[in-house]
Amino acid sequence: MPINERPGSSQSGQPDVRATGTASAPARGRRPPHGEPVVDRALSLLAAFDADHRVLTLAELSRRSAIPLSSALRLAARLVSWGALERDGAGRYCVGLRLLEVATLAPRGHGLREVALPFMHDLAEVTRQHVQLAVRDGMQAMLVERLSARQAASVEYRTGGRLPLHSTGVGLVLLAFAPQEVQEELLAKPVYSEPGNRLIPADTLRRTLADVRLKRLAVFRREDESETIVSIAAPVFGQDETAVGVLGVLVPKRVAQPRLLGLAVQTAARSISRELGARRSSGAPDSQL
Amino acid sequence: MPINERPGSSQSGQPDVRATGTASAPARGRRPPHGEPVVDRALSLLAAFDADHRVLTLAELSRRSAIPLSSALRLAARLVSWGALERDGAGRYCVGLRLLEVATLAPRGHGLREVALPFMHDLAEVTRQHVQLAVRDGMQAMLVERLSARQAASVEYRTGGRLPLHSTGVGLVLLAFAPQEVQEELLAKPVYSEPGNRLIPADTLRRTLADVRLKRLAVFRREDESETIVSIAAPVFGQDETAVGVLGVLVPKRVAQPRLLGLAVQTAARSISRELGARRSSGAPDSQL
Repeated sequence: MPINERPGSSQSGQPDVRATGTASAPARGRRPPHGEPVVDRALSLLAAFDADHRVLTLAELSRRSAIPLSSALRLAARLVSWGALERDGAGRYCVGLRLLEVATLAPRGHGLREVALPFMHDLAEVTRQHVQLAVRDGMQAMLVERLSARQAASVEYRTGGRLPLHSTGVGLVLLAFAPQEVQEELLAKPVYSEPGNRLIPADTLRRTLADVRLKRLAVFRREDESETIVSIAAPVFGQDETAVGVLGVLVPKRVAQPRLLGLAVQTAARSISRELGARRSSGAPDSQL
Repeated sequence: MPINERPGSSQSGQPDVRATGTASAPARGRRPPHGEPVVDRALSLLAAFDADHRVLTLAELSRRSAIPLSSALRLAARLVSWGALERDGAGRYCVGLRLLEVATLAPRGHGLREVALPFMHDLAEVTRQHVQLAVRDGMQAMLVERLSARQAASVEYRTGGRLPLHSTGVGLVLLAFAPQEVQEELLAKPVYSEPGNRLIPADTLRRTLADVRLKRLAVFRREDESETIVSIAAPVFGQDETAVGVLGVLVPKRVAQPRLLGLAVQTAARSISRELGARRSSGAPDSQL
């Protein structure tokens, strides 16, 4: 996270000075940031947390955000006072419930999720495996929701986490239905399989994407150490006929029946699309039959 | 949301000046804030969104956060650049996916949710109604997750939203198992029923809470215009034997069988508690039988 360290000087014709509240400035005459850079710093504190670091001491927070201890303490206090961070009994910091309260208002996340959830349940009851809902965020997919049967195989990605577009079933659907420029940006660079780290030739990926568009379905096999997992995913369309998300199931290869599961996934994805106001979902049947 | 408007002057012995990047300062010589107050302002922008205002124009954002247009524009730009806010095709603002990514790391929210979800599914399949998971946040309950059968009655509160402690089933459980000082703080003020707005005598509420503690179960009837909804809720305990959350079902009165449903809810709540490492869950049977 680059810190937008604006020069603290006189472009506005004002004399040059430190912001208040930073009397204990670090050494070497470096001016503490003020104005918008402070917002960037506060956001850096939030970005210091990840799935493997859900609880951080002040020292860890300072190190992971590259913000000096005293500034980190002050900024964290503001975030705690608002509820974006919380402190545990030992004084360590974690992400707070108030952030979750605001974040669940994201239309592309929980807005879509609220419409999709009943249909995801139907699909989960039929398949007894993982059912996933994802959206594209830039050049990655983000997992908005997953329903998992208790007997379902363990999986790699967490709700709220990010997935590569080119080597997951849900990612391939999002990429196939993304604007041309997003596809070209991804195809312009070498793309490697995950896991395995083998180069995927751009032509191969182009053919895969064309096939996903034609069938409105991706079937992706992910070979993990223990077991091959099959991901079967279909696009969800919104009112303006663009793909707003993707619905998928994850099943171990030994129980996967991609054609049957594909029909179930497409059915549920169409139901969600119709609920979102897409006309496309009431058009011709999906073409893989 | 009060803005912490620190006097921008000379407690640090520095000359008094405007922060940079605020050349287009508002009229009447009022200094724009810098340092931590800027963080508070950025957070006020986030707080401008709610369930009825998920998408806001810049003018609405400015008005709802009480932040002048030019400052709101600058701060929103920082939030958009990080991903806490997003803009739609019309340039309006909404909560961004990146915030959801961070917020799902909240241990008291999604951490608990991940453990609870499979058991919530079991309960949803058995009851075919709403299954809710909530935690206490200060003097309110926050709904962390709800699974809803498609045929279930419509309900008032949204996931990520807040509920009163004293007039919901999940709230009564959270209040009954909250620290003494939380209970006393709530009981010290007049408490009114929702809906209906009738005064609940403190003694009545005290007796209700004692009963919930004894039975480890709350059965709460909420009389809405159309139909009476029954909420049946049981505590979830964590490792240190404190109540970390509450599990509940919501059912229309005409199909409610509180004793039967109570057993199902308590069973699932105990399973979640055991998964969280609570010993209490393996103790004596719940006492309402």
